[in-house]
Amino acid sequence: MSGNIIGHIFKLNTFGESHGECIGGIIDGVPSGLKICEQDLQIDLDRRKPGKSIYTSERKESDKVKILSGIFEGKTTGTSIGIIINNEDKRTRDYRKIKNIFRPGHADYTYEKKYGFRDYRGGGRSSARETAIRVAAGAIAKKYLSNACGAIIRGFISQVGNIKCNFQSWDQVEKNDFFCPDKDCVNKLEHLILKLKNKGDSVGAKITIVAQNVPYGLGEPVFNKLDADIAHALMSINAVKGVEIGDGFKVVSKLGSENVDAILETSFSNNYAGGILGGISSGQDIVAHIALKPTPSILMPVMTKNKYGKIENFKIEGRHDPCVGIRAVPIAEAMMAITIMDHFLLQRIYS
Amino acid sequence: MSGNIIGHIFKLNTFGESHGECIGGIIDGVPSGLKICEQDLQIDLDRRKPGKSIYTSERKESDKVKILSGIFEGKTTGTSIGIIINNEDKRTRDYRKIKNIFRPGHADYTYEKKYGFRDYRGGGRSSARETAIRVAAGAIAKKYLSNACGAIIRGFISQVGNIKCNFQSWDQVEKNDFFCPDKDCVNKLEHLILKLKNKGDSVGAKITIVAQNVPYGLGEPVFNKLDADIAHALMSINAVKGVEIGDGFKVVSKLGSENVDAILETSFSNNYAGGILGGISSGQDIVAHIALKPTPSILMPVMTKNKYGKIENFKIEGRHDPCVGIRAVPIAEAMMAITIMDHFLLQRIYS
Amino acid sequence: MSGNIIGHIFKLNTFGESHGECIGGIIDGVPSGLKICEQDLQIDLDRRKPGKSIYTSERKESDKVKILSGIFEGKTTGTSIGIIINNEDKRTRDYRKIKNIFRPGHADYTYEKKYGFRDYRGGGRSSARETAIRVAAGAIAKKYLSNACGAIIRGFISQVGNIKCNFQSWDQVEKNDFFCPDKDCVNKLEHLILKLKNKGDSVGAKITIVAQNVPYGLGEPVFNKLDADIAHALMSINAVKGVEIGDGFKVVSKLGSENVDAILETSFSNNYAGGILGGISSGQDIVAHIALKPTPSILMPVMTKNKYGKIENFKIEGRHDPCVGIRAVPIAEAMMAITIMDHFLLQRIYS
Amino acid sequence: MSGNIIGHIFKLNTFGESHGECIGGIIDGVPSGLKICEQDLQIDLDRRKPGKSIYTSERKESDKVKILSGIFEGKTTGTSIGIIINNEDKRTRDYRKIKNIFRPGHADYTYEKKYGFRDYRGGGRSSARETAIRVAAGAIAKKYLSNACGAIIRGFISQVGNIKCNFQSWDQVEKNDFFCPDKDCVNKLEHLILKLKNKGDSVGAKITIVAQNVPYGLGEPVFNKLDADIAHALMSINAVKGVEIGDGFKVVSKLGSENVDAILETSFSNNYAGGILGGISSGQDIVAHIALKPTPSILMPVMTKNKYGKIENFKIEGRHDPCVGIRAVPIAEAMMAITIMDHFLLQRIYS
Repeated sequence: MSGNIIGHIFKLNTFGESHGECIGGIIDGVPSGLKICEQDLQIDLDRRKPGKSIYTSERKESDKVKILSGIFEGKTTGTSIGIIINNEDKRTRDYRKIKNIFRPGHADYTYEKKYGFRDYRGGGRSSARETAIRVAAGAIAKKYLSNACGAIIRGFISQVGNIKCNFQSWDQVEKNDFFCPDKDCVNKLEHLILKLKNKGDSVGAKITIVAQNVPYGLGEPVFNKLDADIAHALMSINAVKGVEIGDGFKVVSKLGSENVDAILETSFSNNYAGGILGGISSGQDIVAHIALKPTPSILMPVMTKNKYGKIENFKIEGRHDPCVGIRAVPIAEAMMAITIMDHFLLQRIYS
Repeated sequence: MSGNIIGHIFKLNTFGESHGECIGGIIDGVPSGLKICEQDLQIDLDRRKPGKSIYTSERKESDKVKILSGIFEGKTTGTSIGIIINNEDKRTRDYRKIKNIFRPGHADYTYEKKYGFRDYRGGGRSSARETAIRVAAGAIAKKYLSNACGAIIRGFISQVGNIKCNFQSWDQVEKNDFFCPDKDCVNKLEHLILKLKNKGDSVGAKITIVAQNVPYGLGEPVFNKLDADIAHALMSINAVKGVEIGDGFKVVSKLGSENVDAILETSFSNNYAGGILGGISSGQDIVAHIALKPTPSILMPVMTKNKYGKIENFKIEGRHDPCVGIRAVPIAEAMMAITIMDHFLLQRIYS
Repeated sequence: MSGNIIGHIFKLNTFGESHGECIGGIIDGVPSGLKICEQDLQIDLDRRKPGKSIYTSERKESDKVKILSGIFEGKTTGTSIGIIINNEDKRTRDYRKIKNIFRPGHADYTYEKKYGFRDYRGGGRSSARETAIRVAAGAIAKKYLSNACGAIIRGFISQVGNIKCNFQSWDQVEKNDFFCPDKDCVNKLEHLILKLKNKGDSVGAKITIVAQNVPYGLGEPVFNKLDADIAHALMSINAVKGVEIGDGFKVVSKLGSENVDAILETSFSNNYAGGILGGISSGQDIVAHIALKPTPSILMPVMTKNKYGKIENFKIEGRHDPCVGIRAVPIAEAMMAITIMDHFLLQRIYS
Repeated sequence: MSGNIIGHIFKLNTFGESHGECIGGIIDGVPSGLKICEQDLQIDLDRRKPGKSIYTSERKESDKVKILSGIFEGKTTGTSIGIIINNEDKRTRDYRKIKNIFRPGHADYTYEKKYGFRDYRGGGRSSARETAIRVAAGAIAKKYLSNACGAIIRGFISQVGNIKCNFQSWDQVEKNDFFCPDKDCVNKLEHLILKLKNKGDSVGAKITIVAQNVPYGLGEPVFNKLDADIAHALMSINAVKGVEIGDGFKVVSKLGSENVDAILETSFSNNYAGGILGGISSGQDIVAHIALKPTPSILMPVMTKNKYGKIENFKIEGRHDPCVGIRAVPIAEAMMAITIMDHFLLQRIYS
């Protein structure tokens, strides 16, 4: 495997399994002189961590990040930044039952086929636990971009199952356990998630990410278009099955005359394009949406095969997020921030 | 700019502008011993080329590809393959009018902002003309994969505007000018496209790409998951605004219990996942969908700014595809083939 | 900075400073199924570690490596391997004196100029302490290659100052504190090093690395020729000022007729080429030599500038290797092993 | 094969064989706005081209370069630059004799072993003909760097066989057919080369490359140190067997006290380090030396094997450079320029 690195200039490399000793990463390409401390990273880690509310997995992780290098006297030195998060709540007993079985919808089957065997403890490397390190790296990117150009990168839940959430305000997003921007939806989400939790079922979700104050000029045509790299980064998040930029799939049924972002004196008439033209940022808000599948970890029997080829009716047990989309908001923000950071640095070459 | 290369091992690098002398590319990483000739590449180029029917752009290009290196005695030598396609139908007079104006929805504005000036002739490097080289490279990948594992990578139009096309057969796809798999839709598409052409308007489209007989094990977790790399490759195509794998955005409103691909003796109960689990191919068909925006080149006045900051009501003229989605089918096939080829080679390391 | 990663497929990424909490790295691209444990890495780390003998730096480091991920039930899983080595002997008091001064021949001046400030504690990131992680990664490569093709990668000191060491046997190399292959030189080296230690001076060295049983076919023309990548890897080691393949600079004064490696039935008449032809391994031993400068940390006054621009006569204090070349043998072996491993995996694609 | 690209940001990708239709390349990452024309590239191509004097190969190539993209109205647009040089003097009849034989010291044997067969016409891809494209790309880098920071990158022959050439002046270098900086050596070189030509023998050479006015701060520790990337670039040139930075292998026998580059008010006392400290340019001249082997194409019988395993006494015929080192001066300059350009752009990110 050689896919644990993302980025052209600002590079994130990660390691670690769900139930190993720790997870960690190296962040390379942070310019020197950025004031950063563990608490800066912790803020987003706390937004993502499991066990925060009754609506997410009961796994208890404090997710305390430790910076091991690359900072001196409170500032980045320009060298590689090593980070680590210990795994605290490892319940190895939970996993004996799934040792020899391929849970449908999980990576068990494909990891076993690809690598010949697998670390079956909590999904091993395929677990979304790995994304905590992305969140930590994203926090560095966010802070750098905020200082450098005032960019703000934030996300919210825009749909869970059939509940569509309207964007009311960014304040609203952080006031509930769902990153829900719509006051009128919070109750509905609470009911839905608890109902699913009781039934042992799960549900999909849609997330919207918005990056504001991103300067024009970011993106390297033709294959490293900003939208192409964003799609790559977002699709690399566990459970993501779709990525849209701006109007996304809505454009399929639109006429050209209905899709015009006219260029006005100091702005545009609309932002159907989601802030990217020809793969290059236009200075408008960058807007992306992602679809996350319902976790396949449902507490209901499903047909599956074990590694000896036998079919059985298997029921997953344990602690699971009824909607993985909820905790994915900070992860998606991080991947957007990492991608924009990478292109922001690239563009400094030419400006 | 440093974004003209795609791939980890099987690499495509392209150059060339819409109205320069030629477009071309280098394909690196093709194993030695593959029988290949210009005609193998021409087949897909002919499927994509403009001016084929009254439903696409009237620009006339024979798109004859020339292989300049890397082949000896009819077989690839394992060295880099240089290819070139001359631009025949260059109408430089068409472009004086747009020299100083930023066409809304095009890359004019962002290229000018990023690079300080731009080759305004037909969009220069931002033109979809560049994708012809992708199609040529994709044809090499297709042939290699077909020989190596029997993989077949094909696409079709699944929606144009509000016309949804049901998949009937692959034969049907090649029998009309729209890559339409649905006999009952062809007439409707003809009417729609001609109507739009008359009005000078355009329309969006959705394309579905299917890769069959792809072996399991392809994809490098965690950042080079097969779906992440496919999303990258497809989103890098001009006018694409959304990418889905398998059920895509449908998963948002699904329950976990409705999204089960149960693992059976020799197959799966469904393929909601689109052939990829945990970023690794499962052996099922790989299925992706993309959304293409209506071309912004509509023959109607739109507000825009020129490069001196003045706002005007501008009307694009010239020859344009009323639905760029149609000719994008071979391009999307090519990008899928290039990505799968790349991962097929990567996976040979470990098997 | 974005240069902390080496390798195309087998990738090593490192972090950490001389006097930070720890150093560490991520090794990506190790095929699954390799039996490996911390002790396998420790063997080479022990060969490199400081404080082993009176002939090297007195810094005391046990250099105990810890594997944090990527191993399950004793075997590599195919996922990224995180490793860490704690810094034990940090004497921060040593470094107050050099805080504001640029030690000649060290990276103080250039780091300060490049990054605006620097971690001055023991050279920070520019310290050779970072190479311990390379040695650990190299041990994984060595073990893999040994299993896969029987390759053995070893090095020895071939010259220190004016003392030239003749190769007698590999056994001899490990029998003394200098990796000296020449029994008759060991005494001379002892005397030289102790004399220099007393005087506070230092001396240069030449190291020879030999890779045996490397299969033919490794190396990717034209820019990733095996010798080009070896030169890159070896020149990236601290203090290295020259790299030779095979006869190296001797070829300058040779005639073509004196430089013939005639191809015989099952072998070659000579190996002037050092096992590489046209950038591709020939199956002969791969032989490289490197030149290491005397450490600039001499206990004698030298003119230098402080960061306020003032010139002074400065005398370095502290614990230093009189000949950094000695401990560099395992490091050079590691970089050779990492490079060959990378190309061995690459070549599996095509064979 | 996947090794035809060099560079991190400023990337050169090449294709083409010695006796194919043409050779070519793509240069990616040139900032927009650089005034460049074919004649700018031609100057260095003319310095390298064969058949210029009686001292080099008699192959006649005008080496006229054609720029196919990336330039608009005389300036680079920031998009990829395609270039091409036609092969004019292809004598395919020359190569029937070597079709089935492995010429010792050439890449015939290793290409055949790696790829299963090979383009035997003039060495195919392994021919130094490929380096013409490097020279063209290097000319772009030289011009950019000259404009951006006044950098000048030049080389000369410092030794041929036992004839050592002292540097007298840069003017002197361009006044003779050998890039010889030493008036007193020119006659000796003429005699030596003609004598070898008559005998059908060849000789090695040493080249020195000097880059002046390179700003401090270039180079990315730890693996992309400037010297490591220079070593990579220079060792990738055909026939190069050794690379030195600054004093190179001389440091082996030096004491630390003899190797001091003391830091003075506005300069350094010496430049033993060759302008690079800790992998980062110091602002001093960057100095590198390379060793080139005598061409193995000698007109004398040598033992070798044919591809059927039979040993024979084989005599190469045809037109060859008695000293490939002579024409390598512009190639080495180009590789140095490409590497410095790459790091100059990278450093713009952080300054």
